[in-house]
Amino acid sequence: FTTTTVWQDGARARTTARSFSIETDEPAPLGGTDAAIDPMELLLAAVGTCLTIGWVTQARKRNLDFRSLRIDVNGDYDLRGYLELDENTRPGFSAITYTVHVDSDASPEELAALKEAAERTSPMLDNVLNATPVSGRVEAAA
Amino acid sequence: FTTTTVWQDGARARTTARSFSIETDEPAPLGGTDAAIDPMELLLAAVGTCLTIGWVTQARKRNLDFRSLRIDVNGDYDLRGYLELDENTRPGFSAITYTVHVDSDASPEELAALKEAAERTSPMLDNVLNATPVSGRVEAAA
Repeated sequence: FTTTTVWQDGARARTTARSFSIETDEPAPLGGTDAAIDPMELLLAAVGTCLTIGWVTQARKRNLDFRSLRIDVNGDYDLRGYLELDENTRPGFSAITYTVHVDSDASPEELAALKEAAERTSPMLDNVLNATPVSGRVEAAA
Repeated sequence: FTTTTVWQDGARARTTARSFSIETDEPAPLGGTDAAIDPMELLLAAVGTCLTIGWVTQARKRNLDFRSLRIDVNGDYDLRGYLELDENTRPGFSAITYTVHVDSDASPEELAALKEAAERTSPMLDNVLNATPVSGRVEAAA
């Protein structure tokens, strides 16, 4: 999995992944022009869409079905971390919560089992819940 | 920051954040129809776009400028984790690497300082590098 992000102007950038592309920007209070989704919303979207696939996959394994499925994801954020105004505040989300709204004939026990299995196997939940090494380098471009 | 993901069919979902929306899907080998970007690419995009904003912000503080700036992000992934075929393999990315391609008059020392400052303050890098608590609940929808 690879993405390429090209800076455009200010906080705006265009990211491509295979044949797909996404525009991003920041809301005006964070210094952007509010022209597109924010990078922080992309991470919440990664968690919500990954958990959605997990719920659908785990339901199929159990011969369960949904009439509708919606996952709301919320990130707790304190801007003082990014601005380095408080050394005890981290720059990113301090916590993430989500709510699964599901219309299904599955029992409460079956829904609890789906939640547990989707959480256990979700790639993006894993990368948020647990530490992942990241390394970068800089190359001069002509 | 809040996102709402509504399942559509198979691996396809639509996520909204404020007035913006993103379609997601999985590549065919992962069980999707390859109609849109993958959730795992969204996380890499979150990291790449957040670092891009960090580089631009930190450069402005130092009166530096770029003629072009591109950040490629790559995630190492082993599908056996998600499929639970190997208990020693995690479901998510095992490591993330990125390369900043920058065309600028800044010196190598200035670029190294930009890299350090962008990494230190990046919200999305923080959430990938470090553990973040996540909690979820299930609500029956009518």
